[in-house]
Amino acid sequence: MNDVSYMHLALQLAERTKGQTSPNPMVGSVVVKNGEIVGMGAHLKAGTEHAEVHAIKMAGEKAKEATIYVTLEPCSHHGKTPPCTDLIIKNGIKRVVIATLDPNPLVAGSGIEKLREANIEVEVGVLEQEARELNKVFFHFISNCTPFVTLKTATSLDGKIATSTGQSKWITGDAARTDVHQLRHEHDAILVGIGTVLADNPTLTTRIETGGKNPIRIILDRTLRTPLDSNIVINKEAETWVVTSVQAPKTKQDELEKLGVKVVKVAHDKIKIKDLLQILGKKGITSLFVEGGSAVNDSFLRAHAINELITYIAPKLIGGKEAPTSFSGIGFSKIENALPLTIKEVKQIGDDIKIVSVPKGG
Amino acid sequence: MNDVSYMHLALQLAERTKGQTSPNPMVGSVVVKNGEIVGMGAHLKAGTEHAEVHAIKMAGEKAKEATIYVTLEPCSHHGKTPPCTDLIIKNGIKRVVIATLDPNPLVAGSGIEKLREANIEVEVGVLEQEARELNKVFFHFISNCTPFVTLKTATSLDGKIATSTGQSKWITGDAARTDVHQLRHEHDAILVGIGTVLADNPTLTTRIETGGKNPIRIILDRTLRTPLDSNIVINKEAETWVVTSVQAPKTKQDELEKLGVKVVKVAHDKIKIKDLLQILGKKGITSLFVEGGSAVNDSFLRAHAINELITYIAPKLIGGKEAPTSFSGIGFSKIENALPLTIKEVKQIGDDIKIVSVPKGG
Repeated sequence: MNDVSYMHLALQLAERTKGQTSPNPMVGSVVVKNGEIVGMGAHLKAGTEHAEVHAIKMAGEKAKEATIYVTLEPCSHHGKTPPCTDLIIKNGIKRVVIATLDPNPLVAGSGIEKLREANIEVEVGVLEQEARELNKVFFHFISNCTPFVTLKTATSLDGKIATSTGQSKWITGDAARTDVHQLRHEHDAILVGIGTVLADNPTLTTRIETGGKNPIRIILDRTLRTPLDSNIVINKEAETWVVTSVQAPKTKQDELEKLGVKVVKVAHDKIKIKDLLQILGKKGITSLFVEGGSAVNDSFLRAHAINELITYIAPKLIGGKEAPTSFSGIGFSKIENALPLTIKEVKQIGDDIKIVSVPKGG
Repeated sequence: MNDVSYMHLALQLAERTKGQTSPNPMVGSVVVKNGEIVGMGAHLKAGTEHAEVHAIKMAGEKAKEATIYVTLEPCSHHGKTPPCTDLIIKNGIKRVVIATLDPNPLVAGSGIEKLREANIEVEVGVLEQEARELNKVFFHFISNCTPFVTLKTATSLDGKIATSTGQSKWITGDAARTDVHQLRHEHDAILVGIGTVLADNPTLTTRIETGGKNPIRIILDRTLRTPLDSNIVINKEAETWVVTSVQAPKTKQDELEKLGVKVVKVAHDKIKIKDLLQILGKKGITSLFVEGGSAVNDSFLRAHAINELITYIAPKLIGGKEAPTSFSGIGFSKIENALPLTIKEVKQIGDDIKIVSVPKGG
């Protein structure tokens, strides 16, 4: 065992808390003394103890003269919990190994400085890339103040999201659909267009065996056509926010609000994606899962607002010139303007294929 | 080393001859005596020695009392070369291990019978599935008397084969395009619709570093619109066959024929894919590589005439409701009628993804 393998374990601990720490990052920590693990911990939920606290508690007396591994720079300020740097110093830790600095440029490095002032040996950058990837949502949010956008599509092998008559149930198999529910659990909010609400009347909740967190449901609905008896209004398992424009009729807004729906109004007659993301960021939404339909997908595409694209491809051919694809609207008229992506992962999931990609340079 | 590993070697020898043995199958053979390989061979070209002949020749005197591994049942009839069973018996081979029987039901088993009558130990079925997969084209052709159809598509990650303005050069990268040329080399014939000829004026030759065989170029052209100055007419590196209907003007037919183009006429005003395949089979085309466009692809899809689908997916998003996808036409209006596929291979090729699939139960 060496620094890399202990940090790898700390990352694994952090990873298991995916979906439950927002708006905080996932953080894991391991305390090692004389080649033995004496403490392990992870941050479980915003407002509760940081990873280092759990790990040092578990180590108890053995923390003295030990090395602590932590996937993110320990905090040095008083937030909802006391600074972790103080705890590390107080417990006589002699060496601190950190994967990556705090993403907030205003505080990055301050934790390290405090530790070094206390004559603690500090090393930074062990598995840094992995640590940044793990908390890509958190890093994005801190840097941009807008949610990290994951857009999901599910198509046949010839790119169709439905047949020419509009039938879409089901193109992908059980395993892929379960995976989508896992992704819902991991996001702060889920977004669809009014077209999807009117066509499918979805519930947009997380349905996985072990429960799972329901993201806030966000509907883009320029003229407030959301039916009062639609599932996203009736079902109270999750909050529903309807984002609308100055074109929204006031009476409909009142009716929706009376039923517990939050109506968010933008100041124009159209909903611009960039404006929307600013608004959602201000409301504390760090991650947004876009589930279509194809007009909404196209808006995000042309706004260059997609941070990650998850494509499920089912092994079937639907065909048909009129059968819709995942992005409608105008698209890019020249190949050289098409949005270039980097493939991050390709795997089979049930009978389907899952492709994870990110915009190049994005 | 055991039977399986020697047969694996024989299959590897066979595999390297892909594209050069048609209409014959690929066959490999290994002769082993006292745990040592004493002979190896593969069938190289129709009309030349079978694999067993090469392997036994290499073994020379050592063939006596040896074991021979061969990926396909040795022939027992006089074709262009004498029967391999006679050669095996004459050379004193004591054991014959065969991957799979001859696919022709009229002769399947007759080679084995002849060997057993000569008191040679015969074993059948070692790596049978692999051997059948290797010669899937040959097995298909012998059973159906029609070519094995491989259909290729190349799209963006959102299923587009071009932008809304028709631009399609290039969606996939160099590595994928080189792979396509390798596939051309491996097929007897390549097929496109007249739309592709008029839009792109392709040459449809095999362009790979080491040369490569040019497949026969087949154009579906119901009303004989093929321009006399198009590349597939002017370029003489490969034969060009234009398949047309009773709607073809006689003068245009004469002009094309004068330029060396073979005009194949079906007896109807439309070209039915099933009829086409019968005709091509009768003319000795064992494998057909369909390269679109989307109307032709749709015809093959709806005729359930695709034996293998090769999909290249480029990591980019084109978008646009009007941007074309790989299958146009009518398609299937119900999800349950969509053509179900089994994924056989998913791999990254350059920056792109290559997916090989086959129709279920096909």
